Order: sequence, then C-alpha cells, then structure tokens
Amino acid sequence: MKRHRLPGWSLWITLALTLLIHPGAGAKETSTPNILFVLTDNTGWGDFGAYGGGEARGAPSPNVDRMAREGLLLQNFNTEPQCTPSRSALMTGRFAIRSGNQSVPIGVPYYGLVPWEITIAELLSERGYATGMFGKWHLGKTEGRFPTDQGFDVWYGIPNSTDESIWISPDEIRNFTNAGDLEETLPESQVPWVMEARKGEKPEKLKRYDLKERRRIDAELTRRTIEFMSKHARAKKPFFAFVPLTATHYPTLPHPDFDGKTGYGEYADMLVQTDHYLGRMLSALEELGVEDNTLVVFTADNGPEDPDNGNDRFNGWTGPWAGTYFTAREGGLRAPCILRWPGKIPPGRRSNEIVHIVDFFTTLARLAGAKVPSDRPIDGLDLSDFLLGKSDKSGREGFPIFVGNDFYALKWRNWKVHYIWQESKYSPKEVLSTVPKVVNLITDPREERQVAEPYNTWIQYPMMKVLADFQKSVKQYPNVPLGAPDSYKPSN
Amino acid sequence: MKRHRLPGWSLWITLALTLLIHPGAGAKETSTPNILFVLTDNTGWGDFGAYGGGEARGAPSPNVDRMAREGLLLQNFNTEPQCTPSRSALMTGRFAIRSGNQSVPIGVPYYGLVPWEITIAELLSERGYATGMFGKWHLGKTEGRFPTDQGFDVWYGIPNSTDESIWISPDEIRNFTNAGDLEETLPESQVPWVMEARKGEKPEKLKRYDLKERRRIDAELTRRTIEFMSKHARAKKPFFAFVPLTATHYPTLPHPDFDGKTGYGEYADMLVQTDHYLGRMLSALEELGVEDNTLVVFTADNGPEDPDNGNDRFNGWTGPWAGTYFTAREGGLRAPCILRWPGKIPPGRRSNEIVHIVDFFTTLARLAGAKVPSDRPIDGLDLSDFLLGKSDKSGREGFPIFVGNDFYALKWRNWKVHYIWQESKYSPKEVLSTVPKVVNLITDPREERQVAEPYNTWIQYPMMKVLADFQKSVKQYPNVPLGAPDSYKPSN
Repeated sequence: MKRHRLPGWSLWITLALTLLIHPGAGAKETSTPNILFVLTDNTGWGDFGAYGGGEARGAPSPNVDRMAREGLLLQNFNTEPQCTPSRSALMTGRFAIRSGNQSVPIGVPYYGLVPWEITIAELLSERGYATGMFGKWHLGKTEGRFPTDQGFDVWYGIPNSTDESIWISPDEIRNFTNAGDLEETLPESQVPWVMEARKGEKPEKLKRYDLKERRRIDAELTRRTIEFMSKHARAKKPFFAFVPLTATHYPTLPHPDFDGKTGYGEYADMLVQTDHYLGRMLSALEELGVEDNTLVVFTADNGPEDPDNGNDRFNGWTGPWAGTYFTAREGGLRAPCILRWPGKIPPGRRSNEIVHIVDFFTTLARLAGAKVPSDRPIDGLDLSDFLLGKSDKSGREGFPIFVGNDFYALKWRNWKVHYIWQESKYSPKEVLSTVPKVVNLITDPREERQVAEPYNTWIQYPMMKVLADFQKSVKQYPNVPLGAPDSYKPSN
Repeated sequence: MKRHRLPGWSLWITLALTLLIHPGAGAKETSTPNILFVLTDNTGWGDFGAYGGGEARGAPSPNVDRMAREGLLLQNFNTEPQCTPSRSALMTGRFAIRSGNQSVPIGVPYYGLVPWEITIAELLSERGYATGMFGKWHLGKTEGRFPTDQGFDVWYGIPNSTDESIWISPDEIRNFTNAGDLEETLPESQVPWVMEARKGEKPEKLKRYDLKERRRIDAELTRRTIEFMSKHARAKKPFFAFVPLTATHYPTLPHPDFDGKTGYGEYADMLVQTDHYLGRMLSALEELGVEDNTLVVFTADNGPEDPDNGNDRFNGWTGPWAGTYFTAREGGLRAPCILRWPGKIPPGRRSNEIVHIVDFFTTLARLAGAKVPSDRPIDGLDLSDFLLGKSDKSGREGFPIFVGNDFYALKWRNWKVHYIWQESKYSPKEVLSTVPKVVNLITDPREERQVAEPYNTWIQYPMMKVLADFQKSVKQYPNVPLGAPDSYKPSN
C-alpha cells in the first residue's frame, strides 16, 4: 500500500471542477472525420477475443479483434448501468439523472429526452454532417421524442427496447415466459413497431416488431447503415452513422443465418453475428475509400443481463468483474470499447484509463470542430488528446453511479465506495447506512472485500468531495424531472 | 446441442494413433531458426493484457501484448498441472508419467530425467545449435541429471524450485511461514545454490540461493541470455535459448527495481518485471539483426498457486477458468502462450485449438529439421503447419490428465471428464467412482455443472477409447518408474 500517492487538495478540486466546467467550448480543430458508432446491447466486457473471450467462449470475433490491433482498446470504459440511462448519457454528454432518464421506462405513457436537450447528432448536424441512426433508440416513443426530433436526418429501427418483441408473438412467447395467454391482453397502442423516419416528418410504422423481426433486424440495420455511408461517402459529405444494434439483448435470438452456428447457444451465436455485421461495415468503409477518414467506435451500453445464470444458455462473460447491469458493480458498468481511426489513433494500444460514456459527446464534438453547449452542465470530458496518443491519461478521475433515483456508489481511480450494495439485477438493495463498502478494483476486481479502515476512511475524502460538487452543480442547474413534459425549460 | 458433430470411429482411432505414432520422423524442412523460449512459473492465463489482464490488473504488459499483435496467441494451451511434470513434458515430448516425473519431488534424494531420456536440447544440439539454459531446471539435482547432462552446452540457474530460497533466510523466513526456528535444522546438503555448468564438466556452486538472490535471479538470467544470444548470433551459429524464469512462483519477491512499482502487491510487480525482461530480450534480438530468424515462445509451466486467495497479495488471474495447479481444472492447466516468428507465423492470430506442452518437442524438432526418437512413445504432435498458418487446426483432439500417480481426467475437444475431482491445490481429492463429472468447457468454463445424461454417456465413448489406447501404449512401452536409477533402461 505504501506506493499509493496521496492526492493533494488540488487534485480533487480539479476533479470537482471537471464535473462543472464545459470542456471543448472553443474547439481548436475543424476537421470533419466520418464517424461510425456501433453500440451493442447488454454485452459482457470479456465476450470478444481481444478481451480474453472470443473463440475460447465459443464465439470467434475476428473483426472486433482486428479493430483492437488497429486501434485503441479500453479496459476501463464505463457506462450507466441500464439501457436508457446509458443512451441518454451518450447522446447528451450528461449523466442520465440530469436528464430525467435514470431508469428504463416501464409502463409509462411517455419518457425520454425532452426537446430542450442537445444531442451529439444535433451538434454534428450543425457542422454539416449527414446524421443517420439505425437501431434501438430507447429515449422516447412519442411524437417529438424520436431520433429525428433530436438531430438525426434519418432513422430506421425501434423506439423502445428489444424485449418488447416477445409481446406479440404468441407462438414463441411460451418459450420465454410462463405468461400463458397474457399477450392477448396487450393494448394495441403498446404493440411494438419497426419504424422509419426522416427529419421533419412523422415516423412511419413499417412492420410489427415480433420475434421473427427480432431475429432479422440487425441484418437490416447493417444493410441500411452501409447504404447510408455509401451515399454520403460518394457525395463527399461527412457522415455520422449511429448503429445501436439489438444484439445481445434478451431475447437472444440470432438471425437464421447464425442460429446454431456456434453450437454454444444463442448468445454465442449473436456474438458471432455481431462480429460479422461489424466486419461488413468495416469492409464497406474500405471499399468506399474512406477508411482512413473514419473514426469507428465499437462498444456496448452496459454489461450483461445474467453472466452467471447457471444454465447452458450462456449469457455474456464479464471477465474479471462481477455483477450485472442494474447494479453499481463493475460487471454491469464496464463494457467492451474499441476505437479505430487509421493514422490518427495509434494502433495496438490498450489502456486502463477511466473513460465514461458521457465523454463521447464532448470528444466527438471536439474532433468534428463543434461547440458543446455552455448553458447546462456537460459531464463529458474532451478525450481527444488521449485518443490521438498525445496523452497517456484520459483525464477522468471518477464519476458518480446512480441506479434509478438512488445514488449507489462512487468510482474514483481504482477505488469504489458503495453506499448501496446490490449483488445483481434481481437481488435486494442493501443500504450500507453505517459503513460504506470501499473496494480496490485492482486487487479485488469482484468487489468482495472491504478494504481496511485506514484506507476506507481516507479514500472517502476525495470521493465525498466529488459527490458534494456534483450535488452543488445539481442545485445550480436542477435535473430534468423524471417524466418531464415536452414544455420543460430549466427554472434557473 | 444439435450442431455438435458426432465423431465417427475413424476419428478416435486417428486420435488414439496420434498418441502412439511418432510424428515428425522424416522432417521435410531443414531450416535452423534461432529459438528463444521463455517459460514463467505458476502464472495465470489472464494475467497479461493480451488475455484481458495487464493494466486492468495493475500490471501493464506492453511487451507481451506486442508479441500477441505480431504473432499467435493460444487460448487453449495446456500444461501438466505441476512444475516438474510440465518441464519433463516440455523437454521430452512425453507425458510426464511416462518419464517417472509425474510429481514435484519433496524430500527425495534424487529425481528427474533418467539419462535414457532424449530432450529437445539434445535434438537441437545434434542439428548444430548452440544450446543454453538460463533458469530453473526442476528435473534433477544430482550428478548426471543436470541440464548439461541433457543437451545444454551451458546452464546458469537453480536445479530445483524457487521456494527453496526461503529455507536459508532466517531474517526473512518469518514473513512467509510460521516455522519459527525450523530453518536451523536444514541439513547442509539441502541448502539451495545458484549453479553454473558447461557440458562435460561438473556444475559449480556459485552462491547460496537465498531470498536476496531470489529477488535478483531473473535479472541475471536475462542478462546471461542476452549475452548468450549475442555471442552466437554474431558467430552466425543457430541458438536455442531456454529461459525458465523464476517469476511468478512463490515467494513472489520482485527485484528491488520493481518492488512496489505497481502499488498492487508483489505478484503484480513480478508480472511487470517479467514483461520488462521479455522486452529486453526482444530488443536484443532486434539489435542483433536476428529478429526475423528467431522463433520466440513466451509461456508458463502451469496455472497459479492461489488465484482466489482472498487477501490483498494478488496471486494470478485465471481468466474464465477456475482451479489451481495440482488439479485437473482449467485454471491450473491453461497457461498463457504466445509465439512470434516474423514473416513465418502470421501476425495477430488468436486460436482456441488445443495445444499441449508436449507438442513443443516435436514441433521445434520439425522446424529445426531434427528427427524425433522412434524407440519410445512421443506424445507431442508436429504443429508446424498450424503455427505457420498453413492449417487452422492444431490436430490435437485431447489428452489425459494425471495429477501425481492418479489419472484425474481426460480433456477432449471442448469437453472434459473428471474421474477424480479436486477443487484446488489444498482441497481433498474426491473420487467420483459412480458417475464421472462431464463438463462443457465453453458453456461452463468453471467446470461446475455436470452435463445432462445423454451427453454425459455419449461423450465418454471417444474419451475412454483414448485412455484405453494410452494404457495400451504404456503396456507396450512401460513408464519409467518414479525414482528410477541412472542405470534405467526399458525392459521391452
């Protein structure tokens, strides 16, 4: 322990300020690289070969592994612990609780991004980018809250989560639930649809999103992404292709071309399918001659549903980490994340620097020469120097972890303090009211052991300060309330 | 499960034959690449970055990771489950039980390779190689059983295991044991020494191998390896440098230059140290201009001592696998293994094909144009086509697993059947006399779940046949008995 450097006051003041200040305002560069951003759903940190999984887990991943050789692999990329929060953070550069998106919506009439929010798609659009989204949104299902209301020129996909596909497939539903005839009571208004939209137009319902469609949608997303990229590459227009695939979210049903391909269950099949679709998109970039001018990001929104489920339907491997999404444990927070930009991002790098999904907003804005808003707290940091190899440090020291409305934990460097402990998604929430649980993420990656008292108490100084400053910023800029109407404007 | 192809009889007959036949006899190629073979001790599958660990585990491994980018990373490289057996298998190409080396020696007057055994060093020596060994032997401590009696021109290192270093360090021993004044009873004949030897001469005792030396020995091994490689590279003589480092074996005491370097304990420090020494050897190859003509192997003799020891002295990470050495579980058997040979081994490959440590004997012989013996069973397969990228398949379907004298288990493709189950090194041995435990290593990497009966019974057909054929070969060529004298000759 003797080598841990004690941080001075200056350190956590700096840290606190990074949560308040708006980095990237006044960006110096004015380049406009294409951006292909592929986001998978509920995927384990260790699932792909470059993270130790791949073929050893029954699912070879040559394309993901190649991206890692050619780019930067992040070992400590952190998400919010649920789908909607993570996507909200990605789109806005703000911790999801600031935007009223701290929980996945269940049974509510409307939810998602209020119009007042500013997304990365809007920033890039203003910089002259063609912006296309192909996949799952999960940030609003009502008029005014679709992707094309938030900066995307075009969108094809599903508004909510992919598990809704089991709602309308009476023939298959019994394989997945014990719900009997429940599906017959589903109100027509809640039936899920595959939708298509163009900016300024009302989205069109194309077809019901049932289990058959669920198997095929990622193939269609890939096809449309390539079509979109081809169109704009040929027109020499910079593009932002955002591709939130539905794999590997429950129900894990692969495309018929991949069903049974691995022999190790549907989850493994979907990993192989995803790697294949990524490969097709990468090949398209090469064929279009824009490989060198395109930043590719491959990542996931959070960790897997059920990594240790004890049955043969293998569901994601979290590597050294434990826990699931819907918790503040590393297995839910850490996701695979690889970035490639030939000639710009040095090849073959691995880094354990902390990066948070909010950081994409500020970093992509900076790389594209866009300005981030200054009238609201932006939590994302500009990581461009880190990505481009000009710095070994990401600059991010930590972040608060909310699960729903509750402040569960704080991660700071290689430490985490848990105020509320939850083993896994379906475990009870344990409030650690007397002594919080402080863990060392390097020596105890599964977060099982309270560290000894002297460190326990010391480490909470910088951590509590981070929280206090976050709370202060919330006081100055109140969070968007959960369930805010479209008319929401901040009161400060 | 439907996609598992049922093997025909021909398959397991072929497999059975591979355990008997002597592949590589009549090698076609006559090249003489240099070989640098670095072997670490009790190291976890996941400890290095390219396997998912590295910086995320507090121990960056840039040199190991670079080797992986430039070469072939094996995800399913298998050892024998103890030090002496693994080294016996590596040197002879024969499962250790055939050579009477199935256990680490404790309290015996002599042990190791009988003179009748033929090592890879002998084969390479006959092909004109300079053969040097720098490190831990653990295959004999008496005259006639040192490395220089078994094909090495020169040797510097320790004859037995590195834990002996604590025997003669009364000042430090209390940090490691509760043995009190026990050390004072150690007979002078058992005091460990650092030794140096040349072929045809009696080894010289250089200095006592105490805890101070234990910290420094790997630096000295690295220095001497580079000196050896330099001498022969300049003389244009092909060389075989075998470097069994003492890291990361207990006591995990890093060199003073690395002590406390990571802040995450001695084990992590030793990982960083090992990566650094590997880097120095790789740089030397580059400076000598022989990088392209040198096959580099970086691997370990078996899994770690205690991967889940529950204290802050972090001891190895086994990745998805569980268990320790001295068991038949994957955590003990699987070790990191990366091979690099620029221009010959295609870069950036990962493979989950089964490879066993016995296979190096036959493969290295083949690559160097040497003939393997035909008067004894050689278990090693010729993997040269696999390494050189001419084949995706290693050709190895499985192997028997002995722990000491006991037949514990059989691994076959992605399955394993346990006849004797042992949780970890210090756990009791459970004889599964009624129903063996059959596990699927892809869907259940921790080997916790018995597979359902239809598969359980089916899978044992090809497995039992492998065992029967192994036993048949043992009947034809009896194993060297444990504790055989130097005069041992086979009776068949």
